[in-house]
Amino acid sequence: MNAATTSLAAKETALTAADFARMSPREVRLAMREGRFNLPTTRNVARGHVQSALVVLPRAQAFDFMVFCQRNQRSCPVYEVVEAGSHEPKRIAPGADLRTDLALYHVYRGGQLESRVENIAELWRKDLVAFLIGSNTSCDMALNRAGVQTEKNRWVLRTTVQTDPSGPFSGPLAVTMRWLTPKEAVIATQLTGRFPFNHGAPFHIGDPAGIGADLANPITGQPVTEIPKDVVPVFWECSMTPLEVAIAAKIDLMITCAPSKLFITDIETDKAGAP
Amino acid sequence: MNAATTSLAAKETALTAADFARMSPREVRLAMREGRFNLPTTRNVARGHVQSALVVLPRAQAFDFMVFCQRNQRSCPVYEVVEAGSHEPKRIAPGADLRTDLALYHVYRGGQLESRVENIAELWRKDLVAFLIGSNTSCDMALNRAGVQTEKNRWVLRTTVQTDPSGPFSGPLAVTMRWLTPKEAVIATQLTGRFPFNHGAPFHIGDPAGIGADLANPITGQPVTEIPKDVVPVFWECSMTPLEVAIAAKIDLMITCAPSKLFITDIETDKAGAP
Repeated sequence: MNAATTSLAAKETALTAADFARMSPREVRLAMREGRFNLPTTRNVARGHVQSALVVLPRAQAFDFMVFCQRNQRSCPVYEVVEAGSHEPKRIAPGADLRTDLALYHVYRGGQLESRVENIAELWRKDLVAFLIGSNTSCDMALNRAGVQTEKNRWVLRTTVQTDPSGPFSGPLAVTMRWLTPKEAVIATQLTGRFPFNHGAPFHIGDPAGIGADLANPITGQPVTEIPKDVVPVFWECSMTPLEVAIAAKIDLMITCAPSKLFITDIETDKAGAP
Repeated sequence: MNAATTSLAAKETALTAADFARMSPREVRLAMREGRFNLPTTRNVARGHVQSALVVLPRAQAFDFMVFCQRNQRSCPVYEVVEAGSHEPKRIAPGADLRTDLALYHVYRGGQLESRVENIAELWRKDLVAFLIGSNTSCDMALNRAGVQTEKNRWVLRTTVQTDPSGPFSGPLAVTMRWLTPKEAVIATQLTGRFPFNHGAPFHIGDPAGIGADLANPITGQPVTEIPKDVVPVFWECSMTPLEVAIAAKIDLMITCAPSKLFITDIETDKAGAP
């Protein structure tokens, strides 16, 4: 941590989006732990680092969920499995605490959202296993450097494509749709293929009907009524898929990150490994 | 199945290497089931299809092994997990029977090789889980098409690089070393990166000492005493890694494919998915 970032973390007034963009992953996690994270999304936070979705399940369901992730690797690229009894993702964020270092958690019992909380320390049990799953938000900075905008015309949508089930886990694929210029679409296809652990190359390009994308009821973003002729819709698998599938499994206790509020890892996206 | 391949499967004299190269994966598996496979290796068999290593473990060890594969994805790319109670890898080879459709199995008890058998139907238990793990043998035809030879100057070696452990599973990384011309090395690096589920791009290029490769005691191939100046040694993660790690875990009952005698899947390598 250098002097500039130290002073950011110690800043006494509210931290801004520009502050969060420049902070290190560790500083962002500490701000979240202290309840100082005040943005609606983790997008553009600790720019250039891998962000991951969190799914926490009892050990009894962990193998089935792991097999679900294997069967749907493109939508569920597992970065780390934190075994029962630990809450430190020591491979991708040593020193972090998964019970406190996310901005907001959703707690489900029997598939029903029970609460939205900033801390799950009191809910933690020794039989819980945490899965950290890559997100294509991780690639935003690499796309921006290559001239592809990532701020506007972006949705998360359900599709009619079914995932490959495992045990109690099944359900439709969720995708991120972006509207790009033809040139951006080509660059984004090439570039995201370099990051297979953050969903990799597009799943689909062109007509949303080809994958039954539900434009009228987006998971995030406004309903889409018309697609301009000069854009190319490009679709990537989205880490909302394992979140929605885990909720639908109606497990006794299941905890996820809130949508758009992901876990910030120490991994620099440019150095992210490929399987 | 067309007429030409049907006649191959029905051939009454011994099948040749040329026959096996042209046969479909299903025909090769049936020949293995009938005890008609007579080659020392599955390399070049059913050319152009993905081959996978087999590891069969009791359900009690399956989660730890699955997490091992996740932590070492480059060396352990899981193509399919066949759940306890089934022996049909219905995703990558529908109709196949993992108890009979490999040429040779190794059976271990407590880490000791108990037997080499052509059939494990009598050993099968309802609590066994089968893992099918990609192999870089799968890429041979793609490399050949691109002008890279794959027949000679090829070894499997142990290294001093340690895998990331999980439960009882730990041990050194095994690699495939190939000696290539500089031009072949560049093409092979580009091309294998396209097949991340068959170990992908090289793990290491150049000096074997950089990864502590044991040239004197290869797992397969003759000991190497000197490396010619005009070749570039190129190293890929090898699916012998999970086999050796699983043996070292000294589990009650563990069954693998014999080295060099892999399971032939229906997947065409050129179409093999990327995570």
